[in-house]
Amino acid sequence: MSAEVSGKGLLLKADPIAAAFRDEVKRSLGECPKPPKLVGILATSSAPSKFYAEFTRKQCEELGVEFILKKTGAALSSDLGEGDGVEEAIIEANEDEGVHGIMVYFPIFGVQQDHYLQQIVSPFKDVEGLHVKFHYNLYHNIRFIQPGSLLSSAPSQLPSKVTVETDQPPPGTVKSIIPCTPLAIVKCLEYAGVYNTILPYGDRAYGRIVTVINRSEVVGRPLAALLSNDGARVFSVDIDSIQEYTKRPHVQGSEVEQGQRYHPRHVVRHSNLSLQECLALSDVVVSAVPSASYKVKTEWLKDGCVCLNVAADKNFEKDVRDKASLYIPAVGKVTILMLLRNLYALLLFSELESHSWLDRLRLQQYRQIPEESSQ
Amino acid sequence: MSAEVSGKGLLLKADPIAAAFRDEVKRSLGECPKPPKLVGILATSSAPSKFYAEFTRKQCEELGVEFILKKTGAALSSDLGEGDGVEEAIIEANEDEGVHGIMVYFPIFGVQQDHYLQQIVSPFKDVEGLHVKFHYNLYHNIRFIQPGSLLSSAPSQLPSKVTVETDQPPPGTVKSIIPCTPLAIVKCLEYAGVYNTILPYGDRAYGRIVTVINRSEVVGRPLAALLSNDGARVFSVDIDSIQEYTKRPHVQGSEVEQGQRYHPRHVVRHSNLSLQECLALSDVVVSAVPSASYKVKTEWLKDGCVCLNVAADKNFEKDVRDKASLYIPAVGKVTILMLLRNLYALLLFSELESHSWLDRLRLQQYRQIPEESSQ
Repeated sequence: MSAEVSGKGLLLKADPIAAAFRDEVKRSLGECPKPPKLVGILATSSAPSKFYAEFTRKQCEELGVEFILKKTGAALSSDLGEGDGVEEAIIEANEDEGVHGIMVYFPIFGVQQDHYLQQIVSPFKDVEGLHVKFHYNLYHNIRFIQPGSLLSSAPSQLPSKVTVETDQPPPGTVKSIIPCTPLAIVKCLEYAGVYNTILPYGDRAYGRIVTVINRSEVVGRPLAALLSNDGARVFSVDIDSIQEYTKRPHVQGSEVEQGQRYHPRHVVRHSNLSLQECLALSDVVVSAVPSASYKVKTEWLKDGCVCLNVAADKNFEKDVRDKASLYIPAVGKVTILMLLRNLYALLLFSELESHSWLDRLRLQQYRQIPEESSQ
Repeated sequence: MSAEVSGKGLLLKADPIAAAFRDEVKRSLGECPKPPKLVGILATSSAPSKFYAEFTRKQCEELGVEFILKKTGAALSSDLGEGDGVEEAIIEANEDEGVHGIMVYFPIFGVQQDHYLQQIVSPFKDVEGLHVKFHYNLYHNIRFIQPGSLLSSAPSQLPSKVTVETDQPPPGTVKSIIPCTPLAIVKCLEYAGVYNTILPYGDRAYGRIVTVINRSEVVGRPLAALLSNDGARVFSVDIDSIQEYTKRPHVQGSEVEQGQRYHPRHVVRHSNLSLQECLALSDVVVSAVPSASYKVKTEWLKDGCVCLNVAADKNFEKDVRDKASLYIPAVGKVTILMLLRNLYALLLFSELESHSWLDRLRLQQYRQIPEESSQ
């Protein structure tokens, strides 16, 4: 191995990790009576978005998914504005019963308006897992849901049991959808040996200390929640604060005596450590800072740690492998597979539902009318 | 009048505008069999938020609303972090059937995580009107809704008719909730004579040109949508682009021949005008830029325009009334009344519902189980 020769850590590209999931996703999607249909909505002239859309198409073709690229706004014509028609395209795809999954190529308008658009996508077709219902489940460590709960505007019920014993959904339930970038990062970390498969499901990152640099709602915060719900101690680093995410009680003792070894979900606390102090403790460092100039200092890393770069720019210095035992420079190829895995999961949702989403809604509205008009 | 003496435009403070609504809100809330309960959630050490919370309490006491200030995190103790426990406090207030309205003192974590929290508040208790369902209705000019539609995760159905003839909700429906700051601005503009009451409902701002400086999801974009859905031609100015919002067709003629004078809702287009050119055309200028140094140049204003400042800082120059016929320096006192008006509107929602929100959900979930287990 080159690592032995050079004394440097291993460079682990996403390809072998993606390959491990490609077979699984292809097999799952192959079970479908006809190829599921994914609509990609491209509404801007952004070159990276266009590139990603073409990459999606290629992956879909390889894996047996029908991909329809719906162009609107500046993607369709230079006479049209950036983002024009994107909301209408989402609504149309929501209402089209032949469409099983929807993805939208962000950024379009900026975080606030883009967040609005993410909530307009039907949760039954949200392959990216950006709907607030899925974030709520993730933050509250609700792993299994009744598909019907997605019909309701109310959040899922909090789980009554503290521990999750198995990764098999109880009858009548399915796994909740996890946002695809954080999920891809977790899968890369599993591949990199960060998760200990000897430990029980739901606690396999116990003992690991992880620093996540970025606390956006799309990557950093859901990732910190996922890892800490899986048992890790996570430092969540933002531009102006550092927080600690952990399931373990802050003061051990009384809770342990009562037989409860940890909280049902992670608890967030302010941390007084500096980034340098966090890195000195961390077995894993994930960085997702959207800036070409931002670099994690190699000299601050703990010897033998695992480093993973999520940003389009390189957030680690060139000599990162002088300290890191493993360096994963990008996760995009795994992200797209997680998206198609989510597509398959959403097909299971529909299968568990007796009617299509729209049929159910019509039925619901029909049921409500007599009750309301009797008031 | 001082305006005649000085030759300057009128300074119109929010007090007389607020007074006009105070009586209406007090009368409405007085109809309730017992005082409705509003929970304010204060989770930070921010002095303006604390001040606003005390102001809310004072207004509630005057108007017959029971106000409970729920402090969490840094608001409760300096040992706790900013924002600690805020999500739990929201969930608790959602589930408490004795609570009729919930408001949260933002900012807490920053726009992204705050937006997540805004979606966790039950739409049945969302006096601030920040739930995406209400934004969706506003953006699509859906004015009347069946309260039951809030139970569903799906957006409301788009209206089939182009025009809204009256402000009276059809039987079985109520007015949708409008975010309270944009609503307060519209009410101030109504008071300032910007809306022409001779024109039909839903088109009373027709003929007015308005510049709105800010395009956030909390103030600028909903305001631009409200005004253009009411007939105005609106320039929406952001740091990096100017858009035009209007219901009127871009190219008149064929659509007019078919008897359709305007779109069912505003259409957004990119504008090639500069801010200076927009201001030269504008009858009304609303500025909500969160910066002490940002100023709208008085020399760019159209003579006799109406200027309204929404920001905590003054976005207009000291000599604004040399050009403006009317200057409204702040709207906060009207905003709180709109919030209490929304509280009353939400009480009507519940009255139209045969069961409480939670009861309905339980009923729904109960109904789903047999259908799902038969799969």
